[in-house]
Amino acid sequence: MSSGFQKCHTLMITGANRGLGLQMVKTLVNSSHCPTKVIATTRDKSRAKELLDLAKKHPSINVVTLDAINQDSIEQASKEVESLLGDEGLNCLINNAGINVVSTLETVEAEQMMENYETNAVSPLMITKAFLPLLRKAAKQGTGMGIHRAAVVNVSSLLGSIELNRGPGAEFKTYPYRASKAALNMLTRCVAVDLTPEGILCMAVHPGWVQTDMGGPDALLSKEESINGVLSVIGGLSEKDNGGFLDYTGKTLPW
Amino acid sequence: MSSGFQKCHTLMITGANRGLGLQMVKTLVNSSHCPTKVIATTRDKSRAKELLDLAKKHPSINVVTLDAINQDSIEQASKEVESLLGDEGLNCLINNAGINVVSTLETVEAEQMMENYETNAVSPLMITKAFLPLLRKAAKQGTGMGIHRAAVVNVSSLLGSIELNRGPGAEFKTYPYRASKAALNMLTRCVAVDLTPEGILCMAVHPGWVQTDMGGPDALLSKEESINGVLSVIGGLSEKDNGGFLDYTGKTLPW
Repeated sequence: MSSGFQKCHTLMITGANRGLGLQMVKTLVNSSHCPTKVIATTRDKSRAKELLDLAKKHPSINVVTLDAINQDSIEQASKEVESLLGDEGLNCLINNAGINVVSTLETVEAEQMMENYETNAVSPLMITKAFLPLLRKAAKQGTGMGIHRAAVVNVSSLLGSIELNRGPGAEFKTYPYRASKAALNMLTRCVAVDLTPEGILCMAVHPGWVQTDMGGPDALLSKEESINGVLSVIGGLSEKDNGGFLDYTGKTLPW
Repeated sequence: MSSGFQKCHTLMITGANRGLGLQMVKTLVNSSHCPTKVIATTRDKSRAKELLDLAKKHPSINVVTLDAINQDSIEQASKEVESLLGDEGLNCLINNAGINVVSTLETVEAEQMMENYETNAVSPLMITKAFLPLLRKAAKQGTGMGIHRAAVVNVSSLLGSIELNRGPGAEFKTYPYRASKAALNMLTRCVAVDLTPEGILCMAVHPGWVQTDMGGPDALLSKEESINGVLSVIGGLSEKDNGGFLDYTGKTLPW
């Protein structure tokens, strides 16, 4: 993990009850540079036993209920987090919650497209909007760009790269997921452009193909390997990465 | 207009009741290489007076009702078009119908995001799927790639380019529209990859900033200028353009 986390005091991760989100929390709380407050959100606390157990051992973890496709829930969560963070504001928002609705040209239906878009593209945007006052509060207390000040990290995917969707890169067929991640990449750039004047960074990260429920057992990376890389990238973010698309090794990906 | 239209016998344009869609029909029927059958679809014939008047003068035009966000309507239209085209199949499908839901980071709401995505990204995909049997019928009768055989043209936008969304290119703020067009570009590439073995081409075209209801009076191009360029690009499509993103002058745009 990067020493960039030394000055990141408050951080929030959505979809933290399992998969990569849970791994991020685990890696952070076991590092020497864990933020003072880690907000770990989950849609449903009754399905977040491992996260809640972890929070019992690590008082820096605050588990908050947030259903990413429910605007009332997003707003309720932002109020709860505001009261948890007080004057500090939020240094880093990691929009990690996402789903993969797999379907091919032959099987895809409009409802699948809409469902995947809502969770993977619209929700990160609406969550970013709702937490913007907290990001702004943090941004006003710093200079430069990065997680020492205020940053939004959208967990995207290589499968959202239009350019790389050809040849072997086109083998994984999933219309709803690919379209949702390409849209998320566009929204990442839109937010980056709009928040630059306020010193808030926004970027997209590809965590690699990881052995999670989503990635399946054939995936190339363990959760630990992926998240070590992702957190190193996040810790090292600076102005040059604003509006960019990096993989877990820090390599820039084409749109 | 390109002589590529000499061998394009059947062509369909969605959203042909106004704007660029109507202009495409006008330019086609007034050219020396008009396809034998031009299917011009509109959501509501009662709002398509100019198109219907044009169809009275030009028997090559067949006006068909198609509501792009209604699956039953899409399927009904595909049956109607099948009976109009018979054994010929469809040489060229132009997914032109689209909307622009303008909103900024401050004003954007989830419903706007979903509405724009449904019309601009999901609908072209579902229409392409529904008309695939007709495109396949045409593709089986030809060789090579282009509108002499079978092609899907998605009307996209420069505003869907993530790469160009920076500096002066980022001035036009419209989150729902930009995200929907980036997703449409991804879907264009997905369809291109999947239909290549069958000889069906798929590409995205940016018509320029045009003086339509959508583009407003300050736009740089007249409808005639834009559509002359767009049809020239479509007429000249070949294998090298499959899965690509071209503007109305034929220039490749970055994703």
